[in-house]
Amino acid sequence: MTSTPVARPDEVRRHNRTTLLRLLHIGGPVTRATLANELGLNRSTIKTLVDGLAEAGVVEERVPRPGRGAGRPSLLVLPQPQAAVVLAVDIQVEHVAIAFVGLGGQILGRNSWNLHGRNREPGEVITHIVESATVLAGDLGCIPSGAGVSVPGVVRRADGHVHEAPNLRWTDIALGERLTSVLRVPVLVGNDAELGAVAEHLRGSARGSSDAVYVSADVGVGGGVIAEGSSLRGAAGYVGEFGHMVIRPGGRGCYCGSSGCWETEVGEAALCRALGLPEDTPRGAILVELKELAPDPEAAARRLAEFSEWLTLGLVNVVNLLGPQLVVLGDLFTMLPPSVLDTVTAAVRRRSLVSRAVGGTEIVPSSLGADVKLLGAAEVAFEQVLDTV
Amino acid sequence: MTSTPVARPDEVRRHNRTTLLRLLHIGGPVTRATLANELGLNRSTIKTLVDGLAEAGVVEERVPRPGRGAGRPSLLVLPQPQAAVVLAVDIQVEHVAIAFVGLGGQILGRNSWNLHGRNREPGEVITHIVESATVLAGDLGCIPSGAGVSVPGVVRRADGHVHEAPNLRWTDIALGERLTSVLRVPVLVGNDAELGAVAEHLRGSARGSSDAVYVSADVGVGGGVIAEGSSLRGAAGYVGEFGHMVIRPGGRGCYCGSSGCWETEVGEAALCRALGLPEDTPRGAILVELKELAPDPEAAARRLAEFSEWLTLGLVNVVNLLGPQLVVLGDLFTMLPPSVLDTVTAAVRRRSLVSRAVGGTEIVPSSLGADVKLLGAAEVAFEQVLDTV
Repeated sequence: MTSTPVARPDEVRRHNRTTLLRLLHIGGPVTRATLANELGLNRSTIKTLVDGLAEAGVVEERVPRPGRGAGRPSLLVLPQPQAAVVLAVDIQVEHVAIAFVGLGGQILGRNSWNLHGRNREPGEVITHIVESATVLAGDLGCIPSGAGVSVPGVVRRADGHVHEAPNLRWTDIALGERLTSVLRVPVLVGNDAELGAVAEHLRGSARGSSDAVYVSADVGVGGGVIAEGSSLRGAAGYVGEFGHMVIRPGGRGCYCGSSGCWETEVGEAALCRALGLPEDTPRGAILVELKELAPDPEAAARRLAEFSEWLTLGLVNVVNLLGPQLVVLGDLFTMLPPSVLDTVTAAVRRRSLVSRAVGGTEIVPSSLGADVKLLGAAEVAFEQVLDTV
Repeated sequence: MTSTPVARPDEVRRHNRTTLLRLLHIGGPVTRATLANELGLNRSTIKTLVDGLAEAGVVEERVPRPGRGAGRPSLLVLPQPQAAVVLAVDIQVEHVAIAFVGLGGQILGRNSWNLHGRNREPGEVITHIVESATVLAGDLGCIPSGAGVSVPGVVRRADGHVHEAPNLRWTDIALGERLTSVLRVPVLVGNDAELGAVAEHLRGSARGSSDAVYVSADVGVGGGVIAEGSSLRGAAGYVGEFGHMVIRPGGRGCYCGSSGCWETEVGEAALCRALGLPEDTPRGAILVELKELAPDPEAAARRLAEFSEWLTLGLVNVVNLLGPQLVVLGDLFTMLPPSVLDTVTAAVRRRSLVSRAVGGTEIVPSSLGADVKLLGAAEVAFEQVLDTV
């Protein structure tokens, strides 16, 4: 417990500058008047800040497209993407994607490759990330000042230690430290669902919602929580593992040592079983099957009845435990036939005591598509970087 | 998003004063030297603050008992309990307890009564609370400057609206507003498990733990979460309802409309069934039965095998979703035979992926006994009151 020290003027200026940059970075182009309003600062302070940033090439000002109002239009302040660039990395079970993301959140360039066999080893993945980032840096003519990495596993946020990423077969990998030592910039490593929640909160379906949960299914199932506007983490910076909530006692064995875990009933393999496909059906073929099912709600309801019930039950639990305003469904869940999603949503709202108390929890699909984890990884990198721009 | 304004000196002074009072209130008597250290302020600032508080009768200074060190002992600063008094109310299903709690957390006086039949109606309960508080105020010669109320139900923290307290048969009761209008002091109403978590965090088993969960069983089962040092609430200030996590799909029907809820398997009625007692066995008789079971771990394990399994499963889920450092078990759970609690703890640590990641979640009984919710109610009241002392 410490008291807030009195801020010195230069600290105040730096603080205001970072706050202004964050606003531009997340909110996009705005007028000086809006900035003054949102930041609670007077116009002359804003002018000084914006002029300083423009001189440093971090923002530019532009005449907006003519509006309907009379009078001189207020200049728009735009973030300059190249003024601050971060490396975002999304390590998935069968695939790695990297991107350079500029100030304002725009993806400036990207690359990706598949993982199979030996190149799934941590050392190989790290080497490939660094090589690929070097190529991108050359192509784009810019150097990232920080990096964020999404990993499908249990990650300690403080130092990026990967305790377990079972589907990658990674155990106890000092990923954060190893990447930091080769990239020579601050590296933040996060659990993929946690970073998905961050991205949805800042740029996606959960924008403006201070209490939201992101739940997503790929090979495994994960969840991230935004509570009172920030990312929720438990002890030692580990986030929860929604996929390992036991939902069906005595059910299928799970690699985690437990059985009946949620992901054994609503993960990719479970969806394949529900569709009558082999468990290792490639993603593309699953999507084709789901697409064919979509126009026939009755058939969809029938074939996915059990799958939907497990999805509903798990979501009821998530809502009853955490009381979010909004649940954002990601990845495979967004590809379910709309009629099935509607049924699940209605059932969760009906069956959850807490949903009824909060006046009906909203359940919506992710709006960020395949880039959600890349964007989340970029944002946690920007968090470290914005005050040094 | 707003910038931090520059603080004025009188605001800084008031802020430091409140921080110092909070430290004394929670931490108990300390020396000026410790205060200076903990608050990061110099000794002369501390002297001015303490002198001001002593003059106002909020603290007193006392020579500590002689220690081993040589030299003049540093004076101890003690909070004066009567300098700030709050009313704490714990509404339970069959019982209401009220207490006046003084600065420093001491219970200065208390009263309680049973609820049965007509006097369980909200109007009756409110009237009885006010009458009883008036008597206490007369006896103790002090008037509370705020009140905190614990309710076993779904409560909106912002205004103390009780959405549903099913075991009391209360629905949509404006408890906060109604109590505020008769007591004429700020009234904070909270869910009982949430306030239990607050109390355990500030004064009990979770002291010093920034990521803790409190789970308690009475008629129902509830849970409260401390995340990064503060109480976690979801949308609209509602906290989660752990007891309504579905743990046994297709299990017993629950009044919430769902079935297989955790509290149908580990609440008071479930414990009675496990012990072979009628579901409405009075608490005293349940405790006698549990006490007789305690010396025989084998018999305890056998009779409570199923109950323990459901308790374990639910705790695995809580740990996997929230990743706490510590789980504090409250109320009925603390009365289980120690051998059973040990078995449950070991099983949760073994079966939860997240517990393994954080190096083994600790699971401990509440140390605050029957007063836990009263103390939590007092603390949320003090939160509102300390800066006006």
